[in-house]
Amino acid sequence: MLTKCMENVRTTTPLIHAITNYVTVNDCANALLACGASPIMADDQAEVEEITALCAATVINIGTLNQRTISAMQLAAAKANQLNHCLVLDPVGVGASRLRTQTAQQLLANNHFTAIRGNVSEIKSLALGTGSTQGVDANIADAITETNLPEAINFIRAFSKRTGAIIIVSGAWDIVSDAENSYIIKNGNPLMSKITGSGCMSTCIIAAYLAANPQNMLQATITAVSLMGLAGEKAAAISSGTGSLRNNILDGLSSIDTEQLKVGAQIDKF
Amino acid sequence: MLTKCMENVRTTTPLIHAITNYVTVNDCANALLACGASPIMADDQAEVEEITALCAATVINIGTLNQRTISAMQLAAAKANQLNHCLVLDPVGVGASRLRTQTAQQLLANNHFTAIRGNVSEIKSLALGTGSTQGVDANIADAITETNLPEAINFIRAFSKRTGAIIIVSGAWDIVSDAENSYIIKNGNPLMSKITGSGCMSTCIIAAYLAANPQNMLQATITAVSLMGLAGEKAAAISSGTGSLRNNILDGLSSIDTEQLKVGAQIDKF
Amino acid sequence: MLTKCMENVRTTTPLIHAITNYVTVNDCANALLACGASPIMADDQAEVEEITALCAATVINIGTLNQRTISAMQLAAAKANQLNHCLVLDPVGVGASRLRTQTAQQLLANNHFTAIRGNVSEIKSLALGTGSTQGVDANIADAITETNLPEAINFIRAFSKRTGAIIIVSGAWDIVSDAENSYIIKNGNPLMSKITGSGCMSTCIIAAYLAANPQNMLQATITAVSLMGLAGEKAAAISSGTGSLRNNILDGLSSIDTEQLKVGAQIDKF
Repeated sequence: MLTKCMENVRTTTPLIHAITNYVTVNDCANALLACGASPIMADDQAEVEEITALCAATVINIGTLNQRTISAMQLAAAKANQLNHCLVLDPVGVGASRLRTQTAQQLLANNHFTAIRGNVSEIKSLALGTGSTQGVDANIADAITETNLPEAINFIRAFSKRTGAIIIVSGAWDIVSDAENSYIIKNGNPLMSKITGSGCMSTCIIAAYLAANPQNMLQATITAVSLMGLAGEKAAAISSGTGSLRNNILDGLSSIDTEQLKVGAQIDKF
Repeated sequence: MLTKCMENVRTTTPLIHAITNYVTVNDCANALLACGASPIMADDQAEVEEITALCAATVINIGTLNQRTISAMQLAAAKANQLNHCLVLDPVGVGASRLRTQTAQQLLANNHFTAIRGNVSEIKSLALGTGSTQGVDANIADAITETNLPEAINFIRAFSKRTGAIIIVSGAWDIVSDAENSYIIKNGNPLMSKITGSGCMSTCIIAAYLAANPQNMLQATITAVSLMGLAGEKAAAISSGTGSLRNNILDGLSSIDTEQLKVGAQIDKF
Repeated sequence: MLTKCMENVRTTTPLIHAITNYVTVNDCANALLACGASPIMADDQAEVEEITALCAATVINIGTLNQRTISAMQLAAAKANQLNHCLVLDPVGVGASRLRTQTAQQLLANNHFTAIRGNVSEIKSLALGTGSTQGVDANIADAITETNLPEAINFIRAFSKRTGAIIIVSGAWDIVSDAENSYIIKNGNPLMSKITGSGCMSTCIIAAYLAANPQNMLQATITAVSLMGLAGEKAAAISSGTGSLRNNILDGLSSIDTEQLKVGAQIDKF
């Protein structure tokens, strides 16, 4: 299944529209290309609907949002829903400002998202409408541990049920869950949190995998998350610091093959 | 001639103003520095005319254009024309939305561009005012082959004649042409299309070479295109994936010397 | 003291808000993470005050400023002052356009900056309200030499006295000075000027060091500048071009330890 999901991306080259922050946008574009997709970034309200219509999936990432791009996000999300295209939300820093919280809540209220990915603080903030987000990195107090895992899974399933979205919580372990089925992905390396953009890239790759695997979206998401983690693991093993880590992650995304993915993936059903 | 063109960039350090997209702007700045030029990016209408006036050449790249930056593009283009400075257009994704098509057409109608660089879908869209652009990557159906090369060259020469611009069509082979003289540059590597920004960087380097070689613009363009291709070739030979490819291209741009360029350049007159 | 300053950053992970240009914003975020801080970028006036309030320090970098972000800069600066948070200015390209000059002057007139970092042309332009800035790189005519160093130091001290800010002048040698005490940091490598963002990254790292070392701000600044220079030196020694240089600088920022910093730092009191 991992194999099939990966092959579907690489053979169909899905075109992905990302309205995303200017901090990691280059990493997002390169991650999409590396995993076999094709990126286009457009954020003016005069063109986002046309761009969304051209694409197989749309990513909305609210890092560095502004009044102008918020309008574009709303138009693109509505168009993606109207056309039944995949729509993925990355609520960067939700909870850190009213603007982020309101924008994310409004997007969620007005649209159906295929998937939502964030760190645990972001997902909590988004689900509860309030939270303890400190900037764009997860608050340590929110960490998911073996002890609170069952409680966390219940929380995530409830949020999935309410939104109809696959929920991905990134962290030391990544959790991928819909309302009923939950998976723990144990790939990845703590160093990934020492570069900007590993979350944003992961969200884009998830969108590409969803777009290319419409028949099996949960498996597609698990595969994407596992691939990103595996690329991070392999990169961490050969990097002399965070500059090379970032490049080695892109190298991994572009070179890991189906065999390596099958061997390296660490996926547990909860 | 290649040698002279390269030396002129490296000894005069032309200052290049780029109004460009936020996806690859960092790559553009680093590519300009690597090739021996000096970049400045400014896109507010309150300052673009002054910045353009300071610079030897201005690049207008319409990727991630918006209402605010479109005004800035128009002002900068007019100022560059008024001062007889080089002006280079990169019509990213023209044809993919009405906003891109109209903006590019209007820029072309109101200003004289020294050079225009795009992939074959973009150049077709721009020349015809309609096209089959799918996102920012070339549509496979538009590919230039040995069979349709003479027809493509005629098309490009006609577009050059109409606009007065040197036309650069990037692809497996790059074509550089004015209304009468056409060159096929066979440098480069297919992997270059697997990173974002190789086209945008190429456009910026062309602008630097034009600015430093006003007496011989067609040769300057050919040299710039060949240098970028050679950097890509050398990078592809030593890269383990697309992350390292991107860095190795910048390494090549900053380290290839006149001797290596002379030996490596693969330029055929059509 | 260097050791203590470095440890304070790495153990407290200060959250730094940067309103900065879209050319080097990714490098800024990665440099902050590499040195042990945590970055957040936000530039909409509807949220910048909240984000500034969350953070330990705010950086204002005027490269690619626009009407929208200028408002955000003003609000963030006022909030940082109100809360007595560190506030650092990077006047990129001040003197190259009236918009940059007026914006920087107005920020300076209305707010107290903890530190101001620029190249010699930028600092001259900012201090004199006029200057010879050519783009974003220092004008060669402004270079500080052994001959004019005492005169330069007097000028910088007077500017520090007037503004109450620690002044950092980047160049072949970096100068760090308040109104009375001046230091020459001889770390660094000329190749650092061949990548975009070394100045912007340095400013961000200074902000992180200031935030983590409120009791000893001059020493914190010296340490940050020395660390950046040392990372550049080490990177230059192992890089094959400017692409790898940039990554190796980030590798150095994330891996240089207190012992290496103590041995490598070249700091002279003037």
